[in-house]
Amino acid sequence: MKKFVNDPANFVKEMFEGIYLANKDKLKWVPEYNILYRADLPKDKVVVMQGSGSGHEPAHSMVVGPGMLDACCPGNIFAAPPMDYVYECTKLIANDKGVLHLINNYQGDRMAWDMAREMAEADGIKIGVVIIDDDVSVTNSLYTVGRRGVAGNFFVIKAVGAAAAKGKSLEELVALGEKVNKNVRSMGIALSSCTPPAKGAPIFDIGDDEIEIGIGIHGEPGRRRDKIRSASEIIEEVFTAVHDDIPFQKGDRVAIMVNGMGGTPISELYLLYGLAAKKAEAKGLTIVKNYVGNYCTSLEMQGFSLTLLKLDSEIESLLNEPAEIPIRVF
Amino acid sequence: MKKFVNDPANFVKEMFEGIYLANKDKLKWVPEYNILYRADLPKDKVVVMQGSGSGHEPAHSMVVGPGMLDACCPGNIFAAPPMDYVYECTKLIANDKGVLHLINNYQGDRMAWDMAREMAEADGIKIGVVIIDDDVSVTNSLYTVGRRGVAGNFFVIKAVGAAAAKGKSLEELVALGEKVNKNVRSMGIALSSCTPPAKGAPIFDIGDDEIEIGIGIHGEPGRRRDKIRSASEIIEEVFTAVHDDIPFQKGDRVAIMVNGMGGTPISELYLLYGLAAKKAEAKGLTIVKNYVGNYCTSLEMQGFSLTLLKLDSEIESLLNEPAEIPIRVF
Repeated sequence: MKKFVNDPANFVKEMFEGIYLANKDKLKWVPEYNILYRADLPKDKVVVMQGSGSGHEPAHSMVVGPGMLDACCPGNIFAAPPMDYVYECTKLIANDKGVLHLINNYQGDRMAWDMAREMAEADGIKIGVVIIDDDVSVTNSLYTVGRRGVAGNFFVIKAVGAAAAKGKSLEELVALGEKVNKNVRSMGIALSSCTPPAKGAPIFDIGDDEIEIGIGIHGEPGRRRDKIRSASEIIEEVFTAVHDDIPFQKGDRVAIMVNGMGGTPISELYLLYGLAAKKAEAKGLTIVKNYVGNYCTSLEMQGFSLTLLKLDSEIESLLNEPAEIPIRVF
Repeated sequence: MKKFVNDPANFVKEMFEGIYLANKDKLKWVPEYNILYRADLPKDKVVVMQGSGSGHEPAHSMVVGPGMLDACCPGNIFAAPPMDYVYECTKLIANDKGVLHLINNYQGDRMAWDMAREMAEADGIKIGVVIIDDDVSVTNSLYTVGRRGVAGNFFVIKAVGAAAAKGKSLEELVALGEKVNKNVRSMGIALSSCTPPAKGAPIFDIGDDEIEIGIGIHGEPGRRRDKIRSASEIIEEVFTAVHDDIPFQKGDRVAIMVNGMGGTPISELYLLYGLAAKKAEAKGLTIVKNYVGNYCTSLEMQGFSLTLLKLDSEIESLLNEPAEIPIRVF
């Protein structure tokens, strides 16, 4: 295993320390529960939190900030957060307006968040829940009953984060989050596997000429294994699968995301974006916003996912609201 | 070769098309010369341009926008732009205030930009030149006489881009760019090689337990090949090499960048940042700004570089100026 790591058992803790040290003015850190939260934690609005497994950075630990998450509490690499992480995080940030739990649909996450919610509600904390399941690849999967939650998650965070900042109620935010989730679809392709530090070996094997179509973000099998094909052929299949699922319709206004899985050059992501944008145009869709880069990764996996979000005036307006997160560009 | 690519010969063109389509409202594109330039190209200030090889994205093609580059004209993957790309780009954006050429120190680049500058000057265009050579790894290298220009380049772009927007003269910008270059030092480490699409094979071989210390961004040899070691040991060596080169001194205010080489998980970059930040603190440096992510890459190479920039009040103030570039986060 070749990675920049010290003791693999401390990998997540040392990553969190790095995020914290890079954002000491904006974030607070509770090491024992992997909690990162806003230093300027608001008391006068619903607070929004998330935390699936680590290893998907920048999801979710690097999107805590005004207009996005108020806190996160991820688990270990590719592992749901333990129930007490979720409970402690919920208690830490709770206020009278309530706490919104954004949960990606995996069995381990659902169980941990359900139990933590019950405990927090017993403490008198008001909780709302949105389940995210945007991955069209498979109906059920290795770690899910129902569809998986993948990169579409970012649009849910962005929309409810912006709406929460504007003072929407917990009930309104749950309805909004469910609407965004209902309007968003994703599918991913892997060229390579990835190696969690503590495991020290790839999570699956894949041949030198093979790709996995419909990969999950923890390496779960997709629709099938295939031979490598041209970028255009790959976009044709992925775009069609995502597009036809809702289905999107001519005249729809959309946001589109080409998400890198961690190890894909940004040059290839933009090449894929160009192909996807032309497909969208041919289908009569109007791309209002686009996102190209690493949003929801699987460590160093080479691959990408395509996400389409159907916009209405409310969602479109919320996507244009400001957000301030630790990921810094120039 | 497993990549998201159609005809490898068209890789760069298709990438540029993707960047353009993702930013049609902000950029214009001249396919025959790989030129991307601001749609709102200013006529009342010095214009700033750059273009080394492609394959280092987001450098340089994804940082064209207000407060950064006004235009770029990169060559093919890891190849200097042909002289006529530079000449055509210079002519296209030139105005009475002058054109600033930011050139990374590689022989191919130096030759192409020198010839293009002479031609443009013969046309009556006023040109200023800043050479960037921040890499402390080696004295001369495979493609350079003198040091190589690597990720420190971003700080030069940011500072002169902001100062140009404030109306500084060409002479002032050249002096500023040279000052930033004099104050910035970098060094990189590779865990893996990378594969240019048109070559179809890795640019160098590296063993399963080996790392290259002082790697160049085109895979040029560094100081030595070594066995993989802990992240802390690696940071100790890289930080010391960079720190001791100027040398930085106790009390210095600095900006620090942990730059991913393209295939490194962002989790590892933040882990490395945490270690580097603690080293900086132990040396008595004050980190005023930090940058963690992919800035100057080598396709899908796994590796990172560390950059330290010594700040004075002028540079620090310029780093805080706004910039607007195609790379979009939430």
